[in-house]
Amino acid sequence: MKIGVFDSGLGGLAIARAIMVRLPEYDYLYLGDTKRVPYGNRSQATIHQFVGEALDYLFNQDCQLIILACNTASAEALRHSQQHYLPAKFPDRRVLGVLIPAVEAAVQVGNADRVGVIATASTIESGSYPRELDRLSPGVEIYSQATPLLVPLVENDGLKYARVILEDYLAPLREAKIDSLILGCTHYCLLKDLVREMIDCPVISQDEVVPEKLAQYLDRHSEIESKLGKTGDRSYRVTDLPPGYVDFVRRLSGEELNLELVRI
Amino acid sequence: MKIGVFDSGLGGLAIARAIMVRLPEYDYLYLGDTKRVPYGNRSQATIHQFVGEALDYLFNQDCQLIILACNTASAEALRHSQQHYLPAKFPDRRVLGVLIPAVEAAVQVGNADRVGVIATASTIESGSYPRELDRLSPGVEIYSQATPLLVPLVENDGLKYARVILEDYLAPLREAKIDSLILGCTHYCLLKDLVREMIDCPVISQDEVVPEKLAQYLDRHSEIESKLGKTGDRSYRVTDLPPGYVDFVRRLSGEELNLELVRI
Repeated sequence: MKIGVFDSGLGGLAIARAIMVRLPEYDYLYLGDTKRVPYGNRSQATIHQFVGEALDYLFNQDCQLIILACNTASAEALRHSQQHYLPAKFPDRRVLGVLIPAVEAAVQVGNADRVGVIATASTIESGSYPRELDRLSPGVEIYSQATPLLVPLVENDGLKYARVILEDYLAPLREAKIDSLILGCTHYCLLKDLVREMIDCPVISQDEVVPEKLAQYLDRHSEIESKLGKTGDRSYRVTDLPPGYVDFVRRLSGEELNLELVRI
Repeated sequence: MKIGVFDSGLGGLAIARAIMVRLPEYDYLYLGDTKRVPYGNRSQATIHQFVGEALDYLFNQDCQLIILACNTASAEALRHSQQHYLPAKFPDRRVLGVLIPAVEAAVQVGNADRVGVIATASTIESGSYPRELDRLSPGVEIYSQATPLLVPLVENDGLKYARVILEDYLAPLREAKIDSLILGCTHYCLLKDLVREMIDCPVISQDEVVPEKLAQYLDRHSEIESKLGKTGDRSYRVTDLPPGYVDFVRRLSGEELNLELVRI
């Protein structure tokens, strides 16, 4: 059985590759729904449908455990997947997200009474970050900022414009004197160095926290871990493969990956 | 029977509204595939599939004539729709695009030996603009520039950053001393004033040319025109309706439109 990593597109590769570095022995199957990316400004109903189809595909491909390496999918669909989808369809499998690891890291750094979050419009509108922060650390103040232009900048070779746009996005968070900032979208891992230059507080990047949290999860859950294949196999699948994606992947992962086109 | 106007998202509303102003008597059905927008960086196979599904929907809703008010759809799928889809499925209906009206306008303005085009990556990669320009005016030199960040700027309230990004996109076209510039994406209608400030040649915006070309088409084709209902009915349908779209539509069309959610 494999570890599945799902993202709406290719942004999740940053997290997938970081997990593979930390836990190289397992077998991995990455799926990017590049035919319908981005999810960040779709309705909740549509995101539920798309995530459900992706989970069906990955579980039918023998994934024991799936990481929703997409904040929009995690924010909108993780609890629903855990509470309704899994019990009905795959009761012995598991789905994990990327929000809670980021939230845990944010409240653990120093005196984090005021936590900032930047994310896609739909992640912010879902209210999931404030909900999880409040659950883990009641009373913490949360400052959320939708940053809808950052994914297009990452996906369309626009990083050179990121500073001027981030300047505006970060201004209210600086003013609120946040103690830590969560980069609440997998794509933003590619912007972490720039954001760290631009704001004077700890910045939580999911590629740096999710792998360790997954390692701890597998330590605690031997009933899951024992089912995982350990041949170091990797495969990368996408639902659409337009020209230019191979370059984009090289930029994102620093490697030449073999992307396989599939229907889900 | 109605006139259908199709776009991958809501950008086509700019063209739809301009057509309705020029030809107010007809009945119109607008469809935006907001569940799967944007098309601009998907593969050709995927664009064919999505456009085919949209045409099926609109023809089954009694459209006599469909305008593909999306350059990506026109560039990738118009000829295929006219040569294969229509004869097989709806031989007495018609599909028109937005490329040829723009190309005709570009070569008609003055001494247009050097025509520039800005468009999405997939429209540029399709080679459709050079192909149509060459067919209409052999020997004209074409300078194409993919401008992938402009749609996200329009869709995510980022117009204030358009100048700095357009500065880079337009530089090679200025250097090539183009005689006219085609805005080869429906979204760019919203940027026409800014582009006209920034480049010293006629700028072809499709909302200004498509309505007149459609009027001329209907004059020439009474077998189509005579089938069209003339009650001034309008309806606007979308495949996904996330929060925030009503505001976006107000910005795009200057009006409050009733968007109806449909499955295609």
